[in-house]
Amino acid sequence: MQLDTSFLQDLIGSITERGRDLVGLTWGQEGRGEEQKARPDLVALSEALLTRRGEASGVALAAAIIGGYFDASEDDRVAWLETLAERFGPDGQRLAAAARAYLATGTAEAAAELSEASEPRRQELIRRLNLAPGGTAALVGMRAGLIRHLKSHPRLAPLDVDFRHLFSSWFNRGFLVLRRIDWTTPANILAKIIQYEAVHTIQSWDDLRARLEPPDRRCYAFFHPQLVDDPLIFVEVALTRDIPASIAPLLRIEREVTRPADATTAVFYSISNCQAGLRGVSFGNFLIKQVVEELKRDLPGLKTFVTLSPVPGLTRWLSAELKAEASGAHSPEQLAVAAPLVAGQWQGAGADATKAAVLRTLAARYLMMARTAGGRPVDEVARFHLGNGARLERINVDGDLSAKGLAQAGGVMVNYLYDLATIEANHEAHVDRGEVAASPEVRALLAPPATTTRTRLALPAAARKPR
Amino acid sequence: MQLDTSFLQDLIGSITERGRDLVGLTWGQEGRGEEQKARPDLVALSEALLTRRGEASGVALAAAIIGGYFDASEDDRVAWLETLAERFGPDGQRLAAAARAYLATGTAEAAAELSEASEPRRQELIRRLNLAPGGTAALVGMRAGLIRHLKSHPRLAPLDVDFRHLFSSWFNRGFLVLRRIDWTTPANILAKIIQYEAVHTIQSWDDLRARLEPPDRRCYAFFHPQLVDDPLIFVEVALTRDIPASIAPLLRIEREVTRPADATTAVFYSISNCQAGLRGVSFGNFLIKQVVEELKRDLPGLKTFVTLSPVPGLTRWLSAELKAEASGAHSPEQLAVAAPLVAGQWQGAGADATKAAVLRTLAARYLMMARTAGGRPVDEVARFHLGNGARLERINVDGDLSAKGLAQAGGVMVNYLYDLATIEANHEAHVDRGEVAASPEVRALLAPPATTTRTRLALPAAARKPR
Amino acid sequence: MQLDTSFLQDLIGSITERGRDLVGLTWGQEGRGEEQKARPDLVALSEALLTRRGEASGVALAAAIIGGYFDASEDDRVAWLETLAERFGPDGQRLAAAARAYLATGTAEAAAELSEASEPRRQELIRRLNLAPGGTAALVGMRAGLIRHLKSHPRLAPLDVDFRHLFSSWFNRGFLVLRRIDWTTPANILAKIIQYEAVHTIQSWDDLRARLEPPDRRCYAFFHPQLVDDPLIFVEVALTRDIPASIAPLLRIEREVTRPADATTAVFYSISNCQAGLRGVSFGNFLIKQVVEELKRDLPGLKTFVTLSPVPGLTRWLSAELKAEASGAHSPEQLAVAAPLVAGQWQGAGADATKAAVLRTLAARYLMMARTAGGRPVDEVARFHLGNGARLERINVDGDLSAKGLAQAGGVMVNYLYDLATIEANHEAHVDRGEVAASPEVRALLAPPATTTRTRLALPAAARKPR
Amino acid sequence: MQLDTSFLQDLIGSITERGRDLVGLTWGQEGRGEEQKARPDLVALSEALLTRRGEASGVALAAAIIGGYFDASEDDRVAWLETLAERFGPDGQRLAAAARAYLATGTAEAAAELSEASEPRRQELIRRLNLAPGGTAALVGMRAGLIRHLKSHPRLAPLDVDFRHLFSSWFNRGFLVLRRIDWTTPANILAKIIQYEAVHTIQSWDDLRARLEPPDRRCYAFFHPQLVDDPLIFVEVALTRDIPASIAPLLRIEREVTRPADATTAVFYSISNCQAGLRGVSFGNFLIKQVVEELKRDLPGLKTFVTLSPVPGLTRWLSAELKAEASGAHSPEQLAVAAPLVAGQWQGAGADATKAAVLRTLAARYLMMARTAGGRPVDEVARFHLGNGARLERINVDGDLSAKGLAQAGGVMVNYLYDLATIEANHEAHVDRGEVAASPEVRALLAPPATTTRTRLALPAAARKPR
Repeated sequence: MQLDTSFLQDLIGSITERGRDLVGLTWGQEGRGEEQKARPDLVALSEALLTRRGEASGVALAAAIIGGYFDASEDDRVAWLETLAERFGPDGQRLAAAARAYLATGTAEAAAELSEASEPRRQELIRRLNLAPGGTAALVGMRAGLIRHLKSHPRLAPLDVDFRHLFSSWFNRGFLVLRRIDWTTPANILAKIIQYEAVHTIQSWDDLRARLEPPDRRCYAFFHPQLVDDPLIFVEVALTRDIPASIAPLLRIEREVTRPADATTAVFYSISNCQAGLRGVSFGNFLIKQVVEELKRDLPGLKTFVTLSPVPGLTRWLSAELKAEASGAHSPEQLAVAAPLVAGQWQGAGADATKAAVLRTLAARYLMMARTAGGRPVDEVARFHLGNGARLERINVDGDLSAKGLAQAGGVMVNYLYDLATIEANHEAHVDRGEVAASPEVRALLAPPATTTRTRLALPAAARKPR
Repeated sequence: MQLDTSFLQDLIGSITERGRDLVGLTWGQEGRGEEQKARPDLVALSEALLTRRGEASGVALAAAIIGGYFDASEDDRVAWLETLAERFGPDGQRLAAAARAYLATGTAEAAAELSEASEPRRQELIRRLNLAPGGTAALVGMRAGLIRHLKSHPRLAPLDVDFRHLFSSWFNRGFLVLRRIDWTTPANILAKIIQYEAVHTIQSWDDLRARLEPPDRRCYAFFHPQLVDDPLIFVEVALTRDIPASIAPLLRIEREVTRPADATTAVFYSISNCQAGLRGVSFGNFLIKQVVEELKRDLPGLKTFVTLSPVPGLTRWLSAELKAEASGAHSPEQLAVAAPLVAGQWQGAGADATKAAVLRTLAARYLMMARTAGGRPVDEVARFHLGNGARLERINVDGDLSAKGLAQAGGVMVNYLYDLATIEANHEAHVDRGEVAASPEVRALLAPPATTTRTRLALPAAARKPR
Repeated sequence: MQLDTSFLQDLIGSITERGRDLVGLTWGQEGRGEEQKARPDLVALSEALLTRRGEASGVALAAAIIGGYFDASEDDRVAWLETLAERFGPDGQRLAAAARAYLATGTAEAAAELSEASEPRRQELIRRLNLAPGGTAALVGMRAGLIRHLKSHPRLAPLDVDFRHLFSSWFNRGFLVLRRIDWTTPANILAKIIQYEAVHTIQSWDDLRARLEPPDRRCYAFFHPQLVDDPLIFVEVALTRDIPASIAPLLRIEREVTRPADATTAVFYSISNCQAGLRGVSFGNFLIKQVVEELKRDLPGLKTFVTLSPVPGLTRWLSAELKAEASGAHSPEQLAVAAPLVAGQWQGAGADATKAAVLRTLAARYLMMARTAGGRPVDEVARFHLGNGARLERINVDGDLSAKGLAQAGGVMVNYLYDLATIEANHEAHVDRGEVAASPEVRALLAPPATTTRTRLALPAAARKPR
Repeated sequence: MQLDTSFLQDLIGSITERGRDLVGLTWGQEGRGEEQKARPDLVALSEALLTRRGEASGVALAAAIIGGYFDASEDDRVAWLETLAERFGPDGQRLAAAARAYLATGTAEAAAELSEASEPRRQELIRRLNLAPGGTAALVGMRAGLIRHLKSHPRLAPLDVDFRHLFSSWFNRGFLVLRRIDWTTPANILAKIIQYEAVHTIQSWDDLRARLEPPDRRCYAFFHPQLVDDPLIFVEVALTRDIPASIAPLLRIEREVTRPADATTAVFYSISNCQAGLRGVSFGNFLIKQVVEELKRDLPGLKTFVTLSPVPGLTRWLSAELKAEASGAHSPEQLAVAAPLVAGQWQGAGADATKAAVLRTLAARYLMMARTAGGRPVDEVARFHLGNGARLERINVDGDLSAKGLAQAGGVMVNYLYDLATIEANHEAHVDRGEVAASPEVRALLAPPATTTRTRLALPAAARKPR
């Protein structure tokens, strides 16, 4: 999940050249001969872009700044970003006056002035940088860089907030375009699908072809009109006759193909975000729901919409549970299954039904009971789908016996069910009351108190308040 | 310059239908039979869209609100808009706390919280309404309606500020697409060109064809990807061998065509904004500059880029000057020419060179000296082009002898010159010091003080300070 | 139904220029100054194109010939065409030898050689002319010219045979593309629809829009990939709730629109061939059948596919019948109705049911009994639809009270029914046995012998053999 | 160079299904249960398609025949093809009568009738088969099958002649579309490029990308509108700063890229025909010439257009020369170089300039003197380029040290120069007089008689007459 730097470099190259032609600027440093390239003073250019010169020559200035940024060393880039974070905030005097006025009067006008006065100048700067040809892609790339430095340079945080604020508006779902990806899609876009796939690595072009070309496979992506060759997020779908319990048969290149008209089930088996620079701007929820609608329209025979998902945090959680065994939360038999799994000595439950049952129970506890400080599921994939209103439908032991699958979850995979009729209620119950929607089968896995009449599990009180 | 309501109605119709299918809402009022259509409670839906339900069912809720709005009576629409303006502002308590915290600490974090706390909830509502299919077009249509009521319902003003704020971001030039309009353009778009043309009415499809099809004519428009069939602004261009002094020969359907390779001059003879709902979001500046670049690339023989523009406020100004004749600003001879013009008894100067000279001088005074309270040119067309950094190149008596041209300016038209090399300096001098860039010929029209060495006219001190 | 000569002229202009650049030919006649343009020797160029030079420089030579042709005077064009007809036939010696060999041996090889030897060189010449950019359009234009001269220059006939032979192969339905024409179609194509409409003249762009934009209207055309902006044939369709009896309500610009989902009937109310140069290459049959399939797929509610057609030869036939009244074929009452109609004094039957019944009977006789020497219906529209296997469904008195409708048929219009289940049988019965498929109602109009059990009428023996 | 059978199978599958729905035919053989699929009587269907039923139901019949053909066993296919070849020729009686009439009268009318009478019914059948959706692709596939059987079933020959005759007309260059192939081309088309590349095998998608994406690489293909996803022929081009002597550096994936603006030379280093079914219909000549024009327009800096070509027959020829050494055509030293090469013991000349010179001379003799019975160059690549009017520019020893390159030509590669100014003269001299255009350097390689004044070599008289 990395930016396609060659694409970006090309783009930046052309922006820079263009920018240099357009603006006759005094560069920050005089070159001596060819090797020593003149470097523009990015801060001065940024100030210029925010002033009158920006109104007359905005496109050229924006191009020059973006070009200069990508030409600069990593240190110089961070320095400029930090300057933006610190010196391109709101006007302090105006803001203080507005704050006082609002406290004194409380009028709508005072609130409006306060809103305007508090907007950091960085936001207008980012909007004007977007004037450059290819500006949007460059800004997304810029934020991807910023995010890499965020931990080590915490002063960048306010700038990141501004980026996210603007990107949330610009990449509003209303501006996105859903496009089907298939074997007739341009190769440069497919190369990005290979690069961005984050769940089940695409091994080769043959592997890719096997995921796109057969009539029982689908792939959809969101695109933004300004990033026309670069998907934002995509989902891979298999059309099947029942809910699959393991991933390997779906990924096999040689396999029997189901006629789409015979399929009853659409399986979302991989969802990947593509743009590091759009972190915190969420599309996945919309993508799944719209793909469900598309598929329903195309293939009325489809009745079940379900994922086949990894459980990325299971091993990690079991490891912690083992250490805290004294808690008594799990029985010795259960811990005996967890031990080899955590130790990396687990090759799957195979024919051992008892071990499988134990692992299934442990996974159910993890997915339904383990919560973050904020009361949300610890497992990030569970958090996403349950947060969308999906229901935890089935836990599959030996669902993914690849090295990665064994390492992260002892081979366990999970189906989340997207039932449009209950999504909204599930979502509200989850967000409001911390409930987890689960099938009766999954709920039955949870210890003695067989609360069979409800399909959502109330969170233990302890987990519901932020620690 | 009116919204294409049939298009919008179609769109809204389909949104509404879809929205109704998707949301099982309690409508605000129960229908009795077919005629009495149930009406949704727009305010309740708006609250729902801003809460958790909006996260789960945002698209459906947004579609329901938009559909409900356009189904509603004009009164109900305004009522809802006013409610948004008044009750969907920021959270007062949070805002007050943030204001106090900022005044106490002055930190960047406090400023950031203040910025966030002061954002009216309306803005997030508008962003979420954009989730609906066709949402962007609907929101632009909504604001067009709002603007119509703004004078009579001043409480709508804060909502209008939010719309403009978001639209400035969404319709950032970086998101717009320049497209050439020609005789192979789809008819539905051409029908909008006919409808939106605001300067020289397009009389018929033959008239339109004559402006698009001959090789010495060009037309370009900006489009937004979400309003794919609806231009935002367009400009009509004639390629000629010299700077034209009157509009009629350009518009004539039967005329001699210039080979593009022989043309030296591109004449921007009509620029029209298309979307009432985008008032205050300016594209014209970018459009002209990009079209200049396009044309330069295509036709290297083009050396001169110039407008042929109306002077919409000349008659009005002359009328006021006549009333204030005692001011002595104009000589009796000059007033003698102005009188019939203001009285609507002017048919053009014809062969009378003296009258023509007088009128040219009066027009120069109007364009260069008459200023608004803010020190900007009174004439709106002059304000636009001079603000862009263009230069007032020539004043053409008898440039437009149509009824409209005689009524608004006694037939006077003007050429503004776009010289990329001087645009930026002109723009700065104009904005900073109120100077008007003008050719030596035009400057010479201004009374005794023959300041021949500069091509920009310093504004008389009086005009420079806001009155 | 005339070639769009401006399009062709543009095309030819560019071909010519290009051709002149590419071939350094000795023109047939030396120019003296600018006015006297050098004219290429088209015959010499044609010979060159058929030889080795054509293999090396075919594109340039083809362009030069086409350019030269369209630059030439009408007389020179005809002269060249006649030369092709007379001197670019097969090689006589080779052909005679092949004929003798075939008569001697009768082998397949001899037949093959005979086939090859008998192909006129003109055909290869036409194929090579097609190498020029825009060659196909130019050749179609060339044949349109040829056809205009065919009557006065009968020696052109063999060349016309070659054109038709090749065009039948090139414009094979397998190479055509069906495209829907609607209000989003490029204006240059719509302008051609206006120009080519041959049945119910399109009065204005508003009229056109009313035929394309409402949801209960459709228009489809066949295009050839090489004539991408120029339709070959198109059909206009109205979606209705019953079979219409008159044209005026369909063409009315202001009218109530039927929701497509409510429509039961698709009415083909106008079919126009566009290319005079493609005379004898028939597309109409394929067009109607494919449009029926398209509409069925889109709108499953459609059950009835029917035309509303003119009866162009009725008045002419009635006039002849009046002159031959002694034949006794029609009763005096019937002739009394025919007389004012033929005399141009007929304004429709109006409320006079008797007159209407008489006219209906006369029309039925005309459509079903009047035959050409070859035994086919005299009426060209009937010939087309009955030949396609459609059934004569209803005769509508006062169906078209326009001047044209009254003049050609006393206002009578006809519905032909396309029922895919019976088309093939109808077609065979028509071609093999001269039968006319007709509804019971129409058949009942034919005099005493009420043969009610069959829906096809056997042709009177006399009409069945070529006279 | 094999048909993409999966594509064809899909196509055929859908045609068959459609055809079966459309025609209610009595199949040739009744199925018993699922396994025994009913087989249509292809001959009966073919007869039906040529009669009246074909006029009414042509599309369905054509689809049924094509579907039935591809469903049939190989034996049944051949049987049907032979039936067409034998029983669908011209009507013997009519043909004999026409032959007699022509011999008696010799008129143009008689010739025309003879031409019509001699056309085999197969041609009309093929034209009507083209009515089926996907018919053109299916027919091309059909002929590819026919060609495979041609040697073993010589009775198919007349049918092959008909196919070639029609395909020459249908795939006339005027109907083809030149499209650039690059890294944004749909993957399904690129997969075909990999499959069809016949000169320098494309090893992987990375290899492909390296041939398409860098700015100094180009690839162009001809497409037919009816075979929209399937190229007919393509050429790969490298932009360089001089004429390359060996292929490896061009194909290297990691290499320095030349800026297109700096390139002076376009190197055609691979040309592949794609459709076995179009054998004998030549496009290569047109493709190269049009690509030269495209490149010239895009990159005016390009001055030299040249191939880097294999010499596929050199080893074979040297082997024959060694056996005939007594002829004295080559010196003992020369034969000493040839021996290890023919024996497969040659690894290139390396630094041995003497061996290189000898090999260069032998290659020159082969390319310029070795002729077919018809007097054309024995080497098929030479035959193509010299036949196009190119000039033999340079012989490169050690140009291709791959196993294939060493085996077929001892590593020798050749540059043919395309100089538009001399192509036509070269072509004529070659075809008329058997001359081979060669650079002075190449000509100097030919033995003592240093004919330095001419750049074309007259063929030794012996070679000029067919042996």
